[in-house]
Amino acid sequence: MKTLAEAFHHTLKDVFYAENALTKALPNVAKAAGSAELKKAVETHLDETKKQITILKNVFKSIGEKPEGEKCDAIEGLIKETDGIIKEASDVALDACLIAAAQAVEHYEIARYGTLREWAKILGHDEAHDLLTQILDMEKATNAKLTTVAVASVNKPK
Amino acid sequence: MKTLAEAFHHTLKDVFYAENALTKALPNVAKAAGSAELKKAVETHLDETKKQITILKNVFKSIGEKPEGEKCDAIEGLIKETDGIIKEASDVALDACLIAAAQAVEHYEIARYGTLREWAKILGHDEAHDLLTQILDMEKATNAKLTTVAVASVNKPK
Repeated sequence: MKTLAEAFHHTLKDVFYAENALTKALPNVAKAAGSAELKKAVETHLDETKKQITILKNVFKSIGEKPEGEKCDAIEGLIKETDGIIKEASDVALDACLIAAAQAVEHYEIARYGTLREWAKILGHDEAHDLLTQILDMEKATNAKLTTVAVASVNKPK
Repeated sequence: MKTLAEAFHHTLKDVFYAENALTKALPNVAKAAGSAELKKAVETHLDETKKQITILKNVFKSIGEKPEGEKCDAIEGLIKETDGIIKEASDVALDACLIAAAQAVEHYEIARYGTLREWAKILGHDEAHDLLTQILDMEKATNAKLTTVAVASVNKPK
């Protein structure tokens, strides 16, 4: 991997892997969530993740590549952390930690899509730039929604 | 782990582990970086990480706990990803991917400290809240600085 074009293609495969991994992980998070609001927020996010996978397929298409994933160690670590919470936490701590972990994933994705769309712009991939901006905006909205759920129904002193 | 107080203590140990792991990982990133600006930014971030560890020790002290780490799978994954870049990338792709990975770490930390300081507030840990806000502001500034370095000297079309 030497050029920015190669870095772009590599990182695109990385987020494609990450989103697909999330579609497998999120149902367990929704199942474990105690608060009805959190459960609903996670289920909505699962639907959005599936939409994002479709948009990513169009990004690959727009640069003349086939959609494929490449193992992403960062998302594996983030999902492993969430699995640990489901095993170790209960009551208030469970929902608070699940929402915190979900926001860590969102922030990771915001970083990734922020980078990818800038690279798309530099590389002259205008269609990819617009599609990646769509996903970035969705991730930012999800993060804001998770903050609202945390403040309204999860974070309690005891 | 059942209460928000326990979740707070657990997550504090998690970021303490993460910052200590970064002090070991960042010298390799600085060594690998091609651009002088990126090398300098990473070295500055290493100094800041050491300061953040000192602040975190004061957070533990303020809640009557001893500073200790607990393995954080997310940061392990993020560091593993960075190690992979150092092995697989060169030229423009190396610096572009290193800076993207550093921003992913920053966003992870922004998520973590954002959560921790809100929990500190709810739990009435006012001193911890102020100290964690200090670190959060440092992480946000580092992320902005990395964007500047990326735009000015790293992201090139070829």
